Formats: sequence, structure tokens, C-alpha cells
Amino acid sequence: MSSTPLLDTIASPADLRQLASGDLAQLAQELRSFLIESVARTGGHLSSNLGTIELTLALHYVYDTPEDRLVWDVGHQTYAHKILTGRREGMARLRMQDGVSGFPRRCESPYDTFGVGHSSTSISAALGMAVAARNKNERRNVVAIIGDGAMSAGQAFEALNNAGVVDANLLVILNDNDMSISPPVGALNKYLARLLSGQTFNAARRAGEKVLSLVPSVLELARRAEEHVKGMVVPGTLFEELGFNYIGPIDGHDLDSLIPTLQNLRELNGPQFLHIVTRKGQGYKLAEADPVLYHGVAKFDSNGGIQPSKSTKPSYTQIFGNWLCDMAACDERLIAVTPAMCEGSGLSRFAREYPGRYHDVGIAEQHAMTFAAGLACEGMRPVVAIYSTFLQRAYDQLIHDIALQNLPVVLAIDRGGLVGADGATHNGAFDLSYLGCIPNMLVMTPSDEQECRSMLTTAYRHDGPSAVRYPRGTGPGVPVDDALEALPLGKAEMRRHSALPTADPARVALLAFGSMLAPALAAAEQLDASVANMRFVKPLDADLLRTLAVDHALLVSIEENAVIGGAGSEVARCLEQSGIDTPLLRLGLPDTFVDHGDVAALLSQLGLDATGIVKSIATRLAASGHPLPASTSSTGKTT
Amino acid sequence: MSSTPLLDTIASPADLRQLASGDLAQLAQELRSFLIESVARTGGHLSSNLGTIELTLALHYVYDTPEDRLVWDVGHQTYAHKILTGRREGMARLRMQDGVSGFPRRCESPYDTFGVGHSSTSISAALGMAVAARNKNERRNVVAIIGDGAMSAGQAFEALNNAGVVDANLLVILNDNDMSISPPVGALNKYLARLLSGQTFNAARRAGEKVLSLVPSVLELARRAEEHVKGMVVPGTLFEELGFNYIGPIDGHDLDSLIPTLQNLRELNGPQFLHIVTRKGQGYKLAEADPVLYHGVAKFDSNGGIQPSKSTKPSYTQIFGNWLCDMAACDERLIAVTPAMCEGSGLSRFAREYPGRYHDVGIAEQHAMTFAAGLACEGMRPVVAIYSTFLQRAYDQLIHDIALQNLPVVLAIDRGGLVGADGATHNGAFDLSYLGCIPNMLVMTPSDEQECRSMLTTAYRHDGPSAVRYPRGTGPGVPVDDALEALPLGKAEMRRHSALPTADPARVALLAFGSMLAPALAAAEQLDASVANMRFVKPLDADLLRTLAVDHALLVSIEENAVIGGAGSEVARCLEQSGIDTPLLRLGLPDTFVDHGDVAALLSQLGLDATGIVKSIATRLAASGHPLPASTSSTGKTT
Repeated sequence: MSSTPLLDTIASPADLRQLASGDLAQLAQELRSFLIESVARTGGHLSSNLGTIELTLALHYVYDTPEDRLVWDVGHQTYAHKILTGRREGMARLRMQDGVSGFPRRCESPYDTFGVGHSSTSISAALGMAVAARNKNERRNVVAIIGDGAMSAGQAFEALNNAGVVDANLLVILNDNDMSISPPVGALNKYLARLLSGQTFNAARRAGEKVLSLVPSVLELARRAEEHVKGMVVPGTLFEELGFNYIGPIDGHDLDSLIPTLQNLRELNGPQFLHIVTRKGQGYKLAEADPVLYHGVAKFDSNGGIQPSKSTKPSYTQIFGNWLCDMAACDERLIAVTPAMCEGSGLSRFAREYPGRYHDVGIAEQHAMTFAAGLACEGMRPVVAIYSTFLQRAYDQLIHDIALQNLPVVLAIDRGGLVGADGATHNGAFDLSYLGCIPNMLVMTPSDEQECRSMLTTAYRHDGPSAVRYPRGTGPGVPVDDALEALPLGKAEMRRHSALPTADPARVALLAFGSMLAPALAAAEQLDASVANMRFVKPLDADLLRTLAVDHALLVSIEENAVIGGAGSEVARCLEQSGIDTPLLRLGLPDTFVDHGDVAALLSQLGLDATGIVKSIATRLAASGHPLPASTSSTGKTT
Repeated sequence: MSSTPLLDTIASPADLRQLASGDLAQLAQELRSFLIESVARTGGHLSSNLGTIELTLALHYVYDTPEDRLVWDVGHQTYAHKILTGRREGMARLRMQDGVSGFPRRCESPYDTFGVGHSSTSISAALGMAVAARNKNERRNVVAIIGDGAMSAGQAFEALNNAGVVDANLLVILNDNDMSISPPVGALNKYLARLLSGQTFNAARRAGEKVLSLVPSVLELARRAEEHVKGMVVPGTLFEELGFNYIGPIDGHDLDSLIPTLQNLRELNGPQFLHIVTRKGQGYKLAEADPVLYHGVAKFDSNGGIQPSKSTKPSYTQIFGNWLCDMAACDERLIAVTPAMCEGSGLSRFAREYPGRYHDVGIAEQHAMTFAAGLACEGMRPVVAIYSTFLQRAYDQLIHDIALQNLPVVLAIDRGGLVGADGATHNGAFDLSYLGCIPNMLVMTPSDEQECRSMLTTAYRHDGPSAVRYPRGTGPGVPVDDALEALPLGKAEMRRHSALPTADPARVALLAFGSMLAPALAAAEQLDASVANMRFVKPLDADLLRTLAVDHALLVSIEENAVIGGAGSEVARCLEQSGIDTPLLRLGLPDTFVDHGDVAALLSQLGLDATGIVKSIATRLAASGHPLPASTSSTGKTT
């Protein structure tokens, strides 16, 4: 007999809505078991998904989805939503290439109303949908579900500030689980904690159904008075000041509270705000005890739990974290800033060792950058640790507050290039393009761990804005010394010299940026090509480029960044400026968004492994009438 | 005798601090007269500067500037600050090339602690400065002065949220003047209005000195109790919930209130929040009556006031505003969204004619874009009107919410290229670079008014994200028809064919983007060059490029955008991909920030007028051993 008999009957939310509400507790139990086993087999986000099971059931039970719109913030808490909306089978290939995405995606299901990945967009998007419904005279409920961490971002405030004065039917559910990825910070969080503090929330829990049974008559009264219903339990003044009708806090794991509350809210007009409290990891003791460890997991044994990893080489993130502590030990001007990515950016050790110089500013990339600019104005040396994809959130602050004032702020940009399972929303595909055009910037890409450390030192000693952009995960595994030595500014490094005669039309020089050095070296073995480890995206080593152009028949730039506007674009301009007509072939990420999958497999498909590089070069040489010798053709051996 | 005898004695804030506080009212009067006369002669921001005269005097009087730090938000209200800090003479060349900037700039004065131009950065920067002082054990006051409009931006909230929990001495002064550039919108503004509503604020005014005389003893009490002082008059709950000690509201033109209040606040530790109320245009009746008209002014007669302009041709902004109304009349799916730039973006008429389809979301670029994405998901056709420089604030939302989902959102990007008097903070210098690398984008640059209209229609009919990027001010003045006709997608237009023989080494093709068509055509007359009006930055007209490459000796791309990563970068890649070795010369804005000044003069200095284009081409041809005939040399006649 199936261990999930009730879940087996649910092919869509319509089936769910046929159940008696009393059956939902069992369904929650089955969903939870299925989810733990499923994520243990595939890896993925766990804690957040265990925290939203009851909420997901209640929402699809009460609302007429997909006609009513659910807009999930961030989206890594939507596995139960995916299972209930026809993607249960698909969970076996979660976050794998061509499999179910780890986030809602419009192309995946009509129940996924808005694609997400980055935080704090849900209220904005939901308000747009609610206004559209209003303008089309369609009666439809729109619900945004947002966590307390995501609520700290400026965009969420901008959206609340706008929604509070727009006449549209919007319900914002604040899923208060007291933890974004890192523990939450900031005044808003303290405020929420006060709302939940002993007296008020405990009283609310005790009052339980008694309070809720009062709701219909309160509503009736309110409707008659043509007024908003005021907070039932304790007023959420801050949200009411912004024009919302605040309800809560209520227990987000208690279906008997959630369902009647949502049923009541469904009938109200104007901006509504429901504050629920959930626990990440709920119902799985290991995750409850350590929700950070179980936030995003690789495959694991669901009985034994996650075992300490025996990784043999450190990730770039760790290289950065260690460098940060070492540099802080020699220079007390160093201040570290992170927008809510303490663990992800490798700052845990620094936060412990230098609490007075550590600033987690919340999910607030814009503020993080300008705050760093302010520190730099006063002689500090701020280091902002940020993911490439999230740096997009602070582009203006980088230009207007840091680069324009030529302030010495170091950006330690993690997750540059493809990120794998998280997919298109999280790829760091554009940074070399959007950084390259900013005056005063120094931009570097390391090809190994030691170089990463040296580049961070180079950046730190540079008297202006700088960025070191390194990939997700581990590098080639070269040993890293303890020194804090800078690299010569704007100088590349020759790693291989072609032995082909100078006049050979197949004599090629590969210009490798960062992570692309390894496949470039492998390709060079097949092509007998020269290889430069370019190191600096800005400024480029123009001298070396001119030298290579003289005695090579083709230059090939290779980068794990959008080929449009990236490092290769400046290589081309440098050649143009020198009046050099040696042809250039630019390789990089294509002009499309790259979906989730295994990074190595994706890079291979995109032609950014050794085989692909050889093939592209062979094609190019053949087009110029110079096919490669058979031994090095595109069908040749890979490394 | 001087009309400003007291002001004449003030060379620096130190002189100001020698005055008796009773003299400050006269000084305010003199400053106000000087400022009105000065701005009438030079043009500049007026209303906001008249509103902050007393506040500026009080701040420099009470605080030990520049040792204490004043951080002005936006910065177009700092003329009095500039006059008092040694730049009175410089005001005669305000916003002119090499003259005093219209905004604070660190390189201009030690009193300008942080460069600004864009809004809502002051709290972040000031917090950075306050934390630096704390870490260095320097006792110093840091004051951020921010308007109520700027307070609606997400970044201000992010900064408040962080500041409320950081142990640093920071005073935030909310200068509540009930108007950013457009009238303010949003729930926060309604909240502030309630704080100021009849009873409380009027009571505060009446209480006047009586209330203030109580302050010292309240402070004494509070210090003894080691607690924050609670709001003196009416609690600003929202700000207190975020961890600030709220004081206010008080009359920001009443020096007798301002000075003792600031003197008291100066002695307090932790995050302080002072709410003052001022009037834009204060003391100049014409500006009080129409603060929007007197917000940013050209030269005018200070007695007669601003006269209606007799401009003969419409600006691009007006072309857009008219197109928007015309398109809205044919398609009710059209919704217009602006982040607080109703007048600046040409939306006044639309707002009047289509109030239900008009959304001013406040200074909230991030929200504006995702809100538009939500509208597009539901079948609406949102048009976001935004300045190029402010689009930098919503880069992630454009990538993550609009382009990744391939949603049909039209970006009407005003102020692309150089903007003139506002200078480096406001130039739209980077958009073609940072837009080009985004997959799914359609990007166009019009060279005249009719083309702008046609491109807007092309964008609107395109089933995906699109951008039309046009310059500040007026175009060449071509007549505009009433039709709503789209252009062929990705097709450029030949505007001139060189009559030189095909094999002539001086046969050049100019590839002009947008505003650069006019100087390209003028240069082409001298060079007998071919000229393509490229129209599309993305996708480029690759067919035409290949054709031109065949029978020209040199291609020259010309754009009013950073030459790095811009349109020329894609021209180069297109040629590379086609295996074409016709040399390319890329012209565009240099890799430096361009300061304020007259646009035509700046473009000329940067080589982006006809003379400069001819000169660059001549230099390039000479370097290849093919000097131009003397009649068209670089010293030749200009057009």
C-alpha cells in the first residue's frame, strides 16, 4: 500500500478542493514525508519547503488557483506547490537539466504565475496583476507570499508604499520564519519579533478558535461601516501606517487557523496584510535543529541526516573567507559588508573573529554598496561580498556612489559564470559586461585559488574601486600560500607558447579569462596553441595583445560571461585601436538565458570546454581556408 | 552699500558660528535674496534651495563642519551650503563647464562629504561614515538630510532598517516639503501628512518655545534613565518601530526652533530622527505659488518671473508624451508607469487624460519595473518612462523579472547620452552597454522625432522587452505625423552613399546610432563617406554591415554612449563572426565620467561633432598610410 494514499489522489488543486478540511492535516503529513524523501534523493532546498506545507495547502484549498494568482517570493519554498500542481513525478529530476526548476517558472506551469529566484519582487508583481484585474474588471484574488528576510529589501518597501494607496485587491502574506538564508538582521526584524513577543502572540495562540470564531461578525460590522477591518489580535502598526489592513500574527502550521482566516480575507477588498509564523524545517527534527544546514542540501540519507563533507579542496568562497581574515589581521581599516549572505559568501569565520568590523545589512544590496562608499570616504577599506547575480541589484550605487567618486571599495564577486542547479535567475552571466563600461573600475578574474587570493590583495591595495570575480564551487585545487602579495596591475601571464612556425595559418593564441584557463590549456594541447592567462578584464594587457597579434594567425578570447559586451569586446577594441588586423574569435556565453543543469555539462553544450573550443577554432580556420590537420580536428580527442 | 552686509562677512562656517543666533534671521534674508538673483542669472534649481536656507544656516551654526559631516540627499538643495562654504563667487558659473556643480562633490570642497545627484543615498552613506567614526573612536556627528520624496525609495528604507540596529551616532533629518520633483505619492507620504495633520502640528506650532524650553530637563531625565528621549510632540511610530528616536515635526523655517533642537540632538547617542517641515520656494512668492515651475529653471528675470517659452520644436520628451496618448487611445491595454517623473518624462497629459491607467509609483525604480512585469503577465502593455541614469537603479529587475520572462514591457528611456548642466551623476552614458548584453532585448535609438515615434510603436508592437533610448532636449526638428507605424525590425537605413571609387582607401562608411546621425552626416560631406542610420542597437542590421564592409576601406561606429561595450562593440563582433577583416573604428564616450557643461561643447571636446569625427577618421587613415586629401583633412572646415 502506498505510504501517501491521500496525496496519490491529488492530481491538481481542484482535487484538493474536493477534500474535507479535516483531511488536510493527513495530507500535510504525507506531503512532508514525500518531500523529505524526494529532496534527500535529488538535493535542493529543504528547510524552507518544510515550513510552507500547511500554508501551501491552505492557499490552494481556499483560492481558486490558477484563476486566483499566487505569487511566491524567492520561490525556493514552492516544492509543495509544485507537487500539488501536477509536478509530483517531475520532482525526481528537480533542478536537473530539462527537469523541474527549483523555482516557479511561467513556462513550467500555469500555476507558476511569476518567475522568481531573487527576493522581494512578489509584492510588486502581485500589485501589477491586481491592477490588471481591476482595469479589466475581472474579479480575481492576488496573493503575494513573502518571507521576513525578503521583506527587509527596499523593493518590498517600495511595493508596500505603492500598494497602500492603489485601489486593488491584494493580499500580502508575511511568512515570518525568523530566518532568511542567514539569520535575519535589521530593525524590521526586531519589530516583527516584538509583534510576536510573549504576551501578544501567546495570547493569540491561546485564544485560538475563539478569536477566529469572532471574525465573521467583526467582518459584518466592518462591512456595514464601510471601513477596513482592523487587526484582530494585535495591530501591526507599521503595516497599517502604510495603508494595509493588518491581520495576525497567526500560527502558519495550524490549518484550523489558516483556512478560516484566508476564507475571510478572500472576501475583503483593498490591500490586506496577513502575518503568519512558521518554522523552517518544521516536522523534520534534523532540519528544525539546524535550518541553515538544511537550507540547501545535496543528496543525503533522510534517516541519518547530512554527514560532514570530506571535500579535499577549498571552494573559492573559502579562499575569500580566509583571505578576508588574514587581511583584516594586518589592516584594521578593513570592514566586511554582506547583504544577508554570511555563510554563502564565506564570512562566518570573519563574523566570529571580527564582530565589530562585520556588517550584515540584510537583503539590501543597494544600501550595502552606498554604506561601503560612506565607510571608504572616512578612510576605511570596505570589502563587499556579493554574488554576481545580486550585484545587478546595486548597479546604480556602484556607478554613482563608488566609481564616480573613485572610492576604494573591493567587490568580492562570488558565483561569477554559470551556477548550475539554481539556473537562469542565479547565473552570474553579465558582470564582466556591465562592469567593463564603468570608468575607474579594476576588474579581475582568477583562474585558480592562489590567483584569487593574490587578486583580492591586488584589489585591496588599489586606490579605487575594484572587483574580483570568481566562480561558484571549487577551482583546480592549486595550493594557496599565506602571503598577501599583489599582482602587477594589468599584466597577463603567458602559460603556453605555440611551437608552430610563426607564419603557420593555424598558429592560434588563446586569451583565457578566469575559469576558462583550464579548458583553454587543454584545447591548446590539441591545437599547439599559445595561451595567455589574461587575469585582468580591465585594464587589459594591451602590450601582450599586440605582441601576440604579431605572430599568431588568430586570437581567441574565452570567457564565462555573456559574449556580448564582455572581456572579448575590449580585446577587439584594443586590437582596433592598435590598427591590428589579426582576426579575433570571441567565445563566451550565448545571447540567451542559460537554464539549470550541471555546470560542466552546460559549458560543454555551449562549446566552452576543450572540445568545444577546438571545434570553434577549427570551424573558424576552415572558413578562412585553413583547415586544421586531421590530428587536431574538431572530432579529435578531448582532455 | 552692499545689499548683503552680513553675508559679506561670512567666508566659511567658522565665521557663521561667531554670529549671535539672533543675527541668523537677517542672514537668511540676505542669503535668500542673493540666491534668487544668482539663480535667475545662471539657471539652476530654485524652489528646493529656497526651502532649505534656514536649515542650512542652523546646521552649520550648530555643527562643527566640516569635522562633523553633513550628507545631503539628492543635493540640488545645497546652494546655500555652497555659498556659506566658500563658493559664493563660484555661483556665477553654476553648472557651467569647470564651474561649481549643481550638486555636492567631494572634489569641490571638504564640506561636500558625499557626492550626490540620485536620491535616497544619504542615510546609507552617513551610516557608513558614522560607523567609521565609531570604529576609529572619533567623536563626530553625522547628519543625513533627506526629503520626503527620497524617503519613499527602497534604499532609504534599507538604510533605516540597518541604522536602527547599528550602534552609531547618526541623525536623519527628514525635510518634509510635500513635494519631490513631481507631487509625492504613496502610503508613506499619506502617513507623513497624518503626522502633520491639523491637531498635532498646529498644536506644536502654538506650543512653540514653550515646548522647546522643556527640552533640556527632558534630556537630563532621559540621560539619567539611560534611555532614548521619546518624541517631544507626537510620536513618529513608523520611525520609532525602526529603532530611531523620533523628534518632530517642527517648523524648518523657524530658526528659534531649529537651533535649540539641533543643539540638543547633537548631544544624543544612537540613531536620531528629526522631522522638519519646510516649503519649497519659501520667501519668493512666484516659486511658492508654483514650486514645480521653479524647481529647475533656465535664466529668468527675478522680478517678472519665468515667462512661457516660445520653443519652436518639441522635445523628445514631448514626442513621447504625445505618442503615449495616441497609442493609449487605440489600445486600452496600455498602462503608463513612472518612478516619480511625471513632468520630466512628459506624462502630464497622459496622467490627466488616462488617470486610471497612469501609475506614479514614487521614487521606486525597482518596484516600477517589476510592477510592469506583473501587468504584462496579465496581458497589459506597460510602458515605463524612465531616465537612462535612473534605469541603473532597476537593472536587476529588468534582467530577472522582464527579460528572463520575455515580457512585453516598453522602456521609454529619456536623457540617453550627455545631459549637460546636471553632469556626471545624470548622464545616460552606459545604457547601450548594459542593455546590449541582456538576452531578449530589443534596443533602438532614434535620430529624429519622427523616428522616435515610429520606434515607440515598433517597441509597443514587439512581443518581448524593448527599449527606445532618446536624448535630452530637442532633436533636429523634423515634422512628426499622426500615424502609429512600426519600422522593419533590425533594419538600418542608408542615408548617404560615398561617390569615391570602391577601391579608394579613403572610402569610409559611418555607422551612426541615434543622436550621432547629424554629426555623421555633416562629417560625411567633408569625407564623401557613406552613412547608415543604424536605428537598431539590438538586433543589429548584420546584412547591411556585411554589404558595407565589402566596398568600404573603413567602418566607423559612432554613438553617444560609453565606447566600451556599446553599440560599436556588437558591430565589431558581427564583423568578426562574418570573417570580415574590414577595419573598424569605434567612436563614443570615453572611459571617464563626463562632467557638467554645455552638451554641444562637451561633445565637441570629446570628438563627437563633425569636426571630431573627421579628425578621428583622418588620424586613423593616416596611421594606415592613407592620409585624406588636404581638402578634407582634420583641420578642414566644420559644418
